[in-house]
Amino acid sequence: MAAGLRVLLAARPVGEPKESDFCIEDMPVPQPGAGQLLLRTLWLSLDPYMRSRMSDAPSYATPVAIGGVMEGRTVSEVVASNRDGFAAGDIVLSPHGWQTHAVSDGKALRKIDPALAPVSTALGVLGMPGMTAYAGLLDIGQPKAGETVVVSAASGAVGSVVGQIAKLKGARAVGIAGGPDKCRYVVEQLGFEACVDHRAGDLPARLKAACPKGIDVYFENVGGPVFEAVVPLLNNFARVPVCGQIATYNATEMPAGELRTSQLTRAILTKRLNLRGFIVTDFAARQPDFLRDVSAWVREGRIKYREDVVDGLDKAPRALIGLLRGENFGKMLVRVATGAH
Amino acid sequence: MAAGLRVLLAARPVGEPKESDFCIEDMPVPQPGAGQLLLRTLWLSLDPYMRSRMSDAPSYATPVAIGGVMEGRTVSEVVASNRDGFAAGDIVLSPHGWQTHAVSDGKALRKIDPALAPVSTALGVLGMPGMTAYAGLLDIGQPKAGETVVVSAASGAVGSVVGQIAKLKGARAVGIAGGPDKCRYVVEQLGFEACVDHRAGDLPARLKAACPKGIDVYFENVGGPVFEAVVPLLNNFARVPVCGQIATYNATEMPAGELRTSQLTRAILTKRLNLRGFIVTDFAARQPDFLRDVSAWVREGRIKYREDVVDGLDKAPRALIGLLRGENFGKMLVRVATGAH
Repeated sequence: MAAGLRVLLAARPVGEPKESDFCIEDMPVPQPGAGQLLLRTLWLSLDPYMRSRMSDAPSYATPVAIGGVMEGRTVSEVVASNRDGFAAGDIVLSPHGWQTHAVSDGKALRKIDPALAPVSTALGVLGMPGMTAYAGLLDIGQPKAGETVVVSAASGAVGSVVGQIAKLKGARAVGIAGGPDKCRYVVEQLGFEACVDHRAGDLPARLKAACPKGIDVYFENVGGPVFEAVVPLLNNFARVPVCGQIATYNATEMPAGELRTSQLTRAILTKRLNLRGFIVTDFAARQPDFLRDVSAWVREGRIKYREDVVDGLDKAPRALIGLLRGENFGKMLVRVATGAH
Repeated sequence: MAAGLRVLLAARPVGEPKESDFCIEDMPVPQPGAGQLLLRTLWLSLDPYMRSRMSDAPSYATPVAIGGVMEGRTVSEVVASNRDGFAAGDIVLSPHGWQTHAVSDGKALRKIDPALAPVSTALGVLGMPGMTAYAGLLDIGQPKAGETVVVSAASGAVGSVVGQIAKLKGARAVGIAGGPDKCRYVVEQLGFEACVDHRAGDLPARLKAACPKGIDVYFENVGGPVFEAVVPLLNNFARVPVCGQIATYNATEMPAGELRTSQLTRAILTKRLNLRGFIVTDFAARQPDFLRDVSAWVREGRIKYREDVVDGLDKAPRALIGLLRGENFGKMLVRVATGAH
């Protein structure tokens, strides 16, 4: 039987991860026992949260152990099943990480219907990133028609959905992204009213020009200087869903920045801001609403998505390093095997 | 007719206000015209927000003009009325500021029933400070039975009510106050489970010892080092009503502190905190609930209050300076005149 492959965490990165922080190793393809099934990975999702799993700093989740398989969600195909309810050829969403094959008891799996959409979307617009955008924007951000919604990492898997849902709710969507290509895509393809390039200098002034009526909702994905440019523009009663802080994930110490904590809390007080952190799993109850709404919007062409695909599991470490640098353009995916889907 | 007195803003303070930033001047007692009434001030409320009205830094409210009468709420007696619905001897809550007398058209007044409670409580436990505590704690803080609620400035007009309502809701109330007398009062008289003296050194360790199960609600009145000691102790899903920042009101520049903005936003993200600023007027719709609940609790002895009274309007500047230093002990009031109440 052909050998499998897996990617382990070799060392906890200091600052930006290096390829030597990962270990790519062959593995035998496992055999499913009684009540088990064998999965073959088709797609692996790469996401910013993976950086924090490589670290043992305190967080809401357990870190990956040194020598452990890197954590991640995959779309996988059932190769063999000793378990009722699963048959060879089924496509499932699986949490079995950076490996070409896995044995499962089926409990953590969710079946995917390939007839509804390309199966890779279960890792993107119809998966965790899309759900993050949906719940964070609608339940925390609560945009109203005519308001201005700003989202950072606007061409990414989460940000692109945030802005498009904001528009569907009648709000004005303004993106922040890195580089002219991404900004053009956000405006021309996704239909945002504006997109500001945070690499082009003088972000505060250009963001202000793009938001003449201030900011009512800021969907926070990045932290750092982008966050600091946003705070002075927040309107009274603005809502700030805090979803990520990718600009700081590789930081070896927290950046000092210009904004002092007491300035932020003064802004919270005088402008009656609402800052609320969330993790997608906090909103599990919204999953049926999300799938109903967003799959319809995707079908109707009202929400577009873009995938950035690398081929081969051995390319995953380099791709994650690039993702943390903002080098990806769209939802970052690794095509681990070419199946029927 | 006896002369009146008023206190004007003479200069915008730099740092801590000085007595020379105020101007105390005689004034003729005004005469009410048609449709007007003449008020005599019995009680003037002194509150921390007054410091920001003395400054022209951007805020949610208009500053007092140089040469203008200092802003403030009073409990006043109607001396003469040319207006239907008001009669001499009526007691009213009035926004007419730091002066012994005022003429009013009656529109901004609210009648007070002296039979229900001492009229001074309309400036404290049954007034704006009590309402601030009630709405901020219940609508934003949302304490649940068994949770730990921490409030700073715990012996003050707002903080004392926050902790007592928290206890009525089955939560564990922990205060932070300045000095052993205030801390003893908060525990022994108000019934908080603990109170930590922020002047006694090593606040982080002593606050942690007082909150062995972490902090679920932090009602923020002070900012600065107290806020920084609280943040690491906040539990997942903690709520932080941001009501005031008195430690910074006299600051000529924002204190640098130890906590960086990006550390705060990381805590917001990973612990799914909810920080929300508010001003009591945002919750005007809750006024009937507040008056019903808190006046009942005061009557039943379940909420206690303490007043710190100085006599004479000319003592108001010094008393406000002391309030901003935390020298008051309980709700700060100026007895401007001795009426029937």
